Amino acid sequence: MTEKTVQHAIDYIQETHNQILEDYKTLLRFPSIGGDPAYNEDVRACALWIVEQLAEMGFDNARLVETAKHPVVYADWLHAGDDKPTVLVYDHYDVQPVDPLHLWDSEPFDAEIRDGKLYARGANDNKAGVWGNLKVFEAMLKANGELPVNIKIMFEGEEESGSPSILDFIETHQEMLAADVMLNSDANFNPDTPDMSYAGRGIVSAEVKVTGPKVDLHSGMFGGIVENPLHVAGKIIGSFHDAQGRIQLPGYYDRVVAVDAAEKARIAHGFNRDEMMEKAGVKSFWGDSIAPASERATVYPTLDVNGMWGGYQGAGSKTVLPAEAGFKATLRLVPDQDPTEVSQILKQYVEGFSSDTVKVECTIGQEQWYFQLVTEGPYLDAVQEALEETIGKRAELVRTGGSIPILGLFNRLIGLPITAFGYGSDEGIHSPNEALKIDDFFTALEAGIRLYHNFGELDQ
Amino acid sequence: MTEKTVQHAIDYIQETHNQILEDYKTLLRFPSIGGDPAYNEDVRACALWIVEQLAEMGFDNARLVETAKHPVVYADWLHAGDDKPTVLVYDHYDVQPVDPLHLWDSEPFDAEIRDGKLYARGANDNKAGVWGNLKVFEAMLKANGELPVNIKIMFEGEEESGSPSILDFIETHQEMLAADVMLNSDANFNPDTPDMSYAGRGIVSAEVKVTGPKVDLHSGMFGGIVENPLHVAGKIIGSFHDAQGRIQLPGYYDRVVAVDAAEKARIAHGFNRDEMMEKAGVKSFWGDSIAPASERATVYPTLDVNGMWGGYQGAGSKTVLPAEAGFKATLRLVPDQDPTEVSQILKQYVEGFSSDTVKVECTIGQEQWYFQLVTEGPYLDAVQEALEETIGKRAELVRTGGSIPILGLFNRLIGLPITAFGYGSDEGIHSPNEALKIDDFFTALEAGIRLYHNFGELDQ
Repeated sequence: MTEKTVQHAIDYIQETHNQILEDYKTLLRFPSIGGDPAYNEDVRACALWIVEQLAEMGFDNARLVETAKHPVVYADWLHAGDDKPTVLVYDHYDVQPVDPLHLWDSEPFDAEIRDGKLYARGANDNKAGVWGNLKVFEAMLKANGELPVNIKIMFEGEEESGSPSILDFIETHQEMLAADVMLNSDANFNPDTPDMSYAGRGIVSAEVKVTGPKVDLHSGMFGGIVENPLHVAGKIIGSFHDAQGRIQLPGYYDRVVAVDAAEKARIAHGFNRDEMMEKAGVKSFWGDSIAPASERATVYPTLDVNGMWGGYQGAGSKTVLPAEAGFKATLRLVPDQDPTEVSQILKQYVEGFSSDTVKVECTIGQEQWYFQLVTEGPYLDAVQEALEETIGKRAELVRTGGSIPILGLFNRLIGLPITAFGYGSDEGIHSPNEALKIDDFFTALEAGIRLYHNFGELDQ
Repeated sequence: MTEKTVQHAIDYIQETHNQILEDYKTLLRFPSIGGDPAYNEDVRACALWIVEQLAEMGFDNARLVETAKHPVVYADWLHAGDDKPTVLVYDHYDVQPVDPLHLWDSEPFDAEIRDGKLYARGANDNKAGVWGNLKVFEAMLKANGELPVNIKIMFEGEEESGSPSILDFIETHQEMLAADVMLNSDANFNPDTPDMSYAGRGIVSAEVKVTGPKVDLHSGMFGGIVENPLHVAGKIIGSFHDAQGRIQLPGYYDRVVAVDAAEKARIAHGFNRDEMMEKAGVKSFWGDSIAPASERATVYPTLDVNGMWGGYQGAGSKTVLPAEAGFKATLRLVPDQDPTEVSQILKQYVEGFSSDTVKVECTIGQEQWYFQLVTEGPYLDAVQEALEETIGKRAELVRTGGSIPILGLFNRLIGLPITAFGYGSDEGIHSPNEALKIDDFFTALEAGIRLYHNFGELDQ
């Protein structure tokens, strides 16, 4: 592949601009909410549609690989030659739930374009990665009849629900997944201030149920003599943090590794406090007395309750003492916290609120390790040069507070070097009105073409 | 009215047994959930249907009296003569919400009969009172052409939502409501162990909203640096009681009147600890170190959270840090707690959790006083003798933990002597599968006929 063939592929993208957008709407209209069983058929239909696209454009072995939950989309194109690297390309085609629905300005699966943006759940996270890579490969194949590197595609359907089946999937498909480098496309493309998340946190999720009386009771008759499960749920939630925000689970910080001054400086450099406050719409951060916000958001572990419920939530009043209450929580883990150990600490702590009068049960969901990408070397250089050639800037390396369970698994199970390049905008991810900036997406497609070209220059 | 006319009325009830039940189903099928604005039209339709029934059976002035919220059903029959007492009969035609709906074995407004019970929301509380009184009056009017006493009917539609308009209604209709005695029929009929609630608690209700970030955030990005409204809601709920169950609102117990030994004994006598444990399905009560359960359930004030919510409540997991959280609470008040004073204590305490990072708002709903019925004298004797003549037992006087706001209002505004007689069973009130025991209901109708006969014997 030469500069000329790169330009041919870019030309193809520009010529098919409208068709790329129209077809992307089709992908976005699958409500592939992987975490909610009600959408299981939609998740599968979405995966099948992607397989069809890959087969049509000339990929081999395009198929669904079954797992215990949602299938993985696999395909490969291995005709670049043994002297070219093999790139394992990772994205996920599942999306977050959409609630609160009433805060969306258009239906989350209508994929409506307004003012240069495409609004849909998943428009950025992470169907932009799926679609961006497909269109880049299509452009190179249509324009030049070949790809500059060997490609293996792995698009999973469980990322937003913690990839429960993927550990087993990787362990049983090590040969199929063998590659020289893994490219994580579950990442944002920001042409103004490009960045790359070079490390992220692990995660443990849990659901807690507090049960008391056998039925909902009249609170006027039984209040004060029958312990109220809502009160116990409140006591547990209220006990997780001290007034400064320090987490009270015994031993929770024991394995947390101290971060050196150079890493602290890198973290601080990559963290824009004012921008984060603006995004959150808050005037003050919480817990500043523990450590700078930049570090709390990245190399400190967290515990957040993500939802709670119990009793009467309708309009007006109901004098009920409910039979049960519950909440969901996630904990973000940093090196060297072991997710299995942390989940046991959590379970023991929470279930310790059980008594003669209430029963507290804690069910652990996902248990995922932190992850680490390459921070130097030819694979990172290939990404940086593609960006520089396209937008005149290199990505700043930033440490994220988020989790990419699959990367933690690849780190621990295969030890592949990992780098990252994404196509989506950082707008409304996991929130209402998720929106892809269309012009930026097409810029990202150009950079993607250059990136695979650069990979192709790296002889093995 | 003589023993013979009493028997004629009882005969009429027995002859129309099936029709009484069929017509009762019609009343039960109105989903008159007064606390939920979605049912406003059903509440009104229910009230209108009752007015029609009263007009048809020969009551005068049968009509809806408008209030700021739900109308009061009024009607009178004042032809017994000046020497006969005038009885103001009180019931409510509104019902509690039905959730959790999935725990009902039949639809709550289908009014299905199974194994001698009529299952419906409101079948006991308190449409049994509405229907029981109507059928007693109808029986006496049909069998004898007259009633033994003067009757004024006041059926309200806001009891389950704290009677917000009724203070104003009573103040502006004092003449219309003038009577010698008020009969509260919002009471249970239990032929095995008859009882009468001679005093009950006041109530304050409130809804609390905790708001933080301007939108729902990704908890992986913002957890630990943006304060989570769910955590603050938990801290507030968890702080309401100490480990023994004592309420922590400052000054909350200051006005609570000590109860003397005689009253404690009466309370203990009317409280069946084992039965209450069986009903609740618990092996232990909570807070026994403060006072006996009998007293905590009656002459100690309470604070119960009735519902809480926030964030993601669906299946699976969602890594969200929500913009808001909330809960509803009710407080039961005892002599001499002032509901307005208590609501201010609550509001000040809860809103004290506001900070630089979250805003806490507490909206007060109802503010109602405790109530007191006559505990001796001819009106109580009339009830007791009607029971004795029908089921061979007198009612045990018990102190309830519940609230009947209207009675507190009548105590404070009109000073009417109040006594009580009800028609419903004590099964599933405010819970799924509320059920009227049909045989007991017909026994109650007989007792009701005797009660009004006894009232008629009391010359003024």
